[in-house]
Amino acid sequence: MGTRGRRRAGSPDARQAILEAARAAFARDGYNASLRGIARAAGVDPALVHHYFPERSHLFVEAVYDGPDGPVMDPAVLDDVRRLPASRQGTALVRLFVTQWDRMGADRFAAVVRAALAHEGVVARIRELVVGALVTPLVERVAPDRVRLRSQLIAGHLVGLGMTRWIARLDAVSAASPEELAAAVGPVIQHYLTGDLGDAHDGPAEEAGAFKTVEEPRE
Amino acid sequence: MGTRGRRRAGSPDARQAILEAARAAFARDGYNASLRGIARAAGVDPALVHHYFPERSHLFVEAVYDGPDGPVMDPAVLDDVRRLPASRQGTALVRLFVTQWDRMGADRFAAVVRAALAHEGVVARIRELVVGALVTPLVERVAPDRVRLRSQLIAGHLVGLGMTRWIARLDAVSAASPEELAAAVGPVIQHYLTGDLGDAHDGPAEEAGAFKTVEEPRE
Repeated sequence: MGTRGRRRAGSPDARQAILEAARAAFARDGYNASLRGIARAAGVDPALVHHYFPERSHLFVEAVYDGPDGPVMDPAVLDDVRRLPASRQGTALVRLFVTQWDRMGADRFAAVVRAALAHEGVVARIRELVVGALVTPLVERVAPDRVRLRSQLIAGHLVGLGMTRWIARLDAVSAASPEELAAAVGPVIQHYLTGDLGDAHDGPAEEAGAFKTVEEPRE
Repeated sequence: MGTRGRRRAGSPDARQAILEAARAAFARDGYNASLRGIARAAGVDPALVHHYFPERSHLFVEAVYDGPDGPVMDPAVLDDVRRLPASRQGTALVRLFVTQWDRMGADRFAAVVRAALAHEGVVARIRELVVGALVTPLVERVAPDRVRLRSQLIAGHLVGLGMTRWIARLDAVSAASPEELAAAVGPVIQHYLTGDLGDAHDGPAEEAGAFKTVEEPRE
């Protein structure tokens, strides 16, 4: 990147060049990597970095999520899931999550979680971009009720799955193929998408087999 | 602690005094707190700290889990769950997890996760003590098969739930009462305890409503 000429603000790939430079800088220098150095490596004016990413946390989250095949944050990555019947989206979402992060790498998953623990701005940006802009819109198309709780339970379960596979590396979860995890975890995500979440004060959730799902939710 | 006389190795509360001193020291100074200072605050010889906790990670994990009502790591905390019929253990486990960490505090939950991300020894100790000594023995009493995968999916889901409630503080999960979470998440943990985890190569897990549970598993 550093050898190219300086990009103008309107350059279509300036934003992408900033993300690529940022990804390398954050991986090398951590969360407090120099924004000026990132601009220089991307061949852009430092003001342009600020223009696209008003906060360091915005740049960090998008850079870590930015994949070799384009930004993972793009809601389009969920199109394949959205096109399925509602009753099959749980399994598809698990398969997508596992294959995507398997490809992106355990280190990047750990980097996101580590930064989220250390910087409130990173947590806030993940809340906005991952839960708010990716998971919630998927859920609200099919859920019968309680969209926020469902979205947050799904996001939390996927993060927890990632913690066991890419950070704690628990053996059975780590050894499982994406398909095996989709089969084991998919029905759970499906339950959070379209199932009956129960009621704190009556008993249906207490008994095994009471795992009711709502028939053919709207799509 | 520091004002008391030095405890001898056989003293029944020496171990507990070390844990209390360690909890304060880790909270104040982080993971690299002085072990000698912990021994001094507990009124014991430094060799005794090493005797009870051969590795820093062992002391850290137990100190953070050590509660005002005694060590949370004690397998006895799960007795109330174990005494229930197998079909009700999922909900009870979620209720126990949420109420216990609500009481212990978000900061301590974050401290465990942060240390686990930074120190492989901490992850290893959590694998041994939490997954190996607490969750797995509970699961193997009731699960029809695949004990390790079930245990790890349960541990991962609970960690993920904790991340959303005590670290990312997503609003719906944070606002939910322990009973509401037990009702919403309990059936999922029940599924992982005794349900059909599906097969990567046939289709049952693909359809909503296919969330089969094994009838009356052995207890």
